Amino acid sequence: MTPSYQRWVLASRPQGRVTADNFRLENLPIPTIKEGEVLVRNHYISLDPYMRARMDDVKSYAAAQVLGETMIAGTVGVVLESKNSQYIAGDTVLAHLGWAEIGVSDGHLMRKIDVSRIPMSAYLGALGMPGMAAWYGVTQILHPTSGDTVLVSAASGAVGSVVGQLCKQRGCRVIGIAGGSEKCAYVVQDLGFDACIDYRSNNWREQLKQATPDGVDGLFENVGGAVFDAGVARMNAFGRIALCGLIAGYDGEPIPFKNMRYVLARRLSLQGFIVTEHMEYWPQGLAELTALFSAGKLRYRESIVDGLASAPEALMGLLSGKNFGKQLVKLV
Amino acid sequence: MTPSYQRWVLASRPQGRVTADNFRLENLPIPTIKEGEVLVRNHYISLDPYMRARMDDVKSYAAAQVLGETMIAGTVGVVLESKNSQYIAGDTVLAHLGWAEIGVSDGHLMRKIDVSRIPMSAYLGALGMPGMAAWYGVTQILHPTSGDTVLVSAASGAVGSVVGQLCKQRGCRVIGIAGGSEKCAYVVQDLGFDACIDYRSNNWREQLKQATPDGVDGLFENVGGAVFDAGVARMNAFGRIALCGLIAGYDGEPIPFKNMRYVLARRLSLQGFIVTEHMEYWPQGLAELTALFSAGKLRYRESIVDGLASAPEALMGLLSGKNFGKQLVKLV
Repeated sequence: MTPSYQRWVLASRPQGRVTADNFRLENLPIPTIKEGEVLVRNHYISLDPYMRARMDDVKSYAAAQVLGETMIAGTVGVVLESKNSQYIAGDTVLAHLGWAEIGVSDGHLMRKIDVSRIPMSAYLGALGMPGMAAWYGVTQILHPTSGDTVLVSAASGAVGSVVGQLCKQRGCRVIGIAGGSEKCAYVVQDLGFDACIDYRSNNWREQLKQATPDGVDGLFENVGGAVFDAGVARMNAFGRIALCGLIAGYDGEPIPFKNMRYVLARRLSLQGFIVTEHMEYWPQGLAELTALFSAGKLRYRESIVDGLASAPEALMGLLSGKNFGKQLVKLV
Repeated sequence: MTPSYQRWVLASRPQGRVTADNFRLENLPIPTIKEGEVLVRNHYISLDPYMRARMDDVKSYAAAQVLGETMIAGTVGVVLESKNSQYIAGDTVLAHLGWAEIGVSDGHLMRKIDVSRIPMSAYLGALGMPGMAAWYGVTQILHPTSGDTVLVSAASGAVGSVVGQLCKQRGCRVIGIAGGSEKCAYVVQDLGFDACIDYRSNNWREQLKQATPDGVDGLFENVGGAVFDAGVARMNAFGRIALCGLIAGYDGEPIPFKNMRYVLARRLSLQGFIVTEHMEYWPQGLAELTALFSAGKLRYRESIVDGLASAPEALMGLLSGKNFGKQLVKLV
């Protein structure tokens, strides 16, 4: 019997919300690698909001996820076999091998990681792409200085949690927005934000006003929708907005933005960005994040499901805000 | 009998559209000036879209127009009497003396202008605040380079017409948007744009697509609404948007912006601005505009109504797109 592994492929494109039948679980024989390739056993798969956008067949910054192909994802794992001189069996690697137990790489977009002092999974979160998205948006778009007020949506999430901690390091007043009192308590007590608004509470608009008595100078947006509009309405003249995600509108019709007039009247700047296009900043950003982590000043939380079979449900949960912290699928 | 002059004051704030009874015409005695002041007879009053925003009592970049006070406006006129050592009777001056036949200034925000080679009225248009708004947005926000496609709304207007001509000078493909075939013909034939979309035609979306086969790199927005959304949807990755006005939404509920997802997916930057906050650029900008004008490469059109009594109706016309070129009220 040939040894086999499992993977999820995109079976169909979502009509609105993602559903379980958009995915298909497949069994494949473990491949034989060619010269220059490595065979990797994935230990963790990263689930991220951008995946929803890639499931649609629309022109975007990246090619759409191909139907019938392995669902895309960042992964960390261990090399099982190598025909590439850069790697040996046993190396721990960060790669993009998708929703699969096993992957083959020619080394492109893969790198060895040091797991002696940093947990493997952190390379998919606070010390990985989400952490770098936070770092890039804060340092290259928001430019916060001491005394500024920064507002962050999805504040308990993989990106938002890092945004807030980086801004606290820079002497800012930091206000988070999250869904539910449990997440808000974590954001204030564990992450050290000055306040957190629960957007599910009835008087969140009033809370937002009270938490930002001096207005908002920098807004890091991950969600979109009514909370984004309300945040923009609190902004001071010459405020900066880093647009990192619009998860509230990923599942269907985009949610209209009502407060463009504030962008004009308050002379705001708004910048959409994709962190993977700014790799030149990674050494600098990762150095700061790693130093913070080593000093115990970069806290994060993970939401881990076990086994590849759980991946679709975990992604659906992530898209509706059910996760609490960085969403991962643990395979090994 | 004391000599008198007329002025318009804001009688009430508009509920939605501006109406004639928002204004009140008053007769006042011609004032006696104090030491340091000058008495000016206004020759032209500039009418501009920003006035609509100032008529509301909302927090904006500038204080609201005060009820019962002279309607604000930029003016050009001639000094009748001076007790200020910087001016003598007969000087032609650019000032902010409002909707009035006569004004008194202490010299603040006033300057002498040379009308030997430049028509007085141009200092309120292509060589004034609207021209500088165009210059600032083009050079400091859009950063167009040769071969870029630039899209400009309100293309036959005081700002848009200058935007297009500045971008043509820089080797860009320039597409205008205007209301009606007459304006569009002017934009292409007289101003030298490559194409102009009439947003009142049924197939304007298709026209916009055909006119921008390589997408849009820079968008200069004066209007907002459906045409703005459509323009953003045509933008290329890393495109720049200069947000100068949102006249379509000034008369009531703001018009929602539907295409925020493109700002993210295409990594666009959007910057709201108010040119009067960037006076440090005026010498440089005005030098370019004046040189272009002298070389016959800066064309503009004026929409002039006669007499102070016509001002309210002219502003209402401007706000609904009835003007064709820079809107002025001629008093002398």
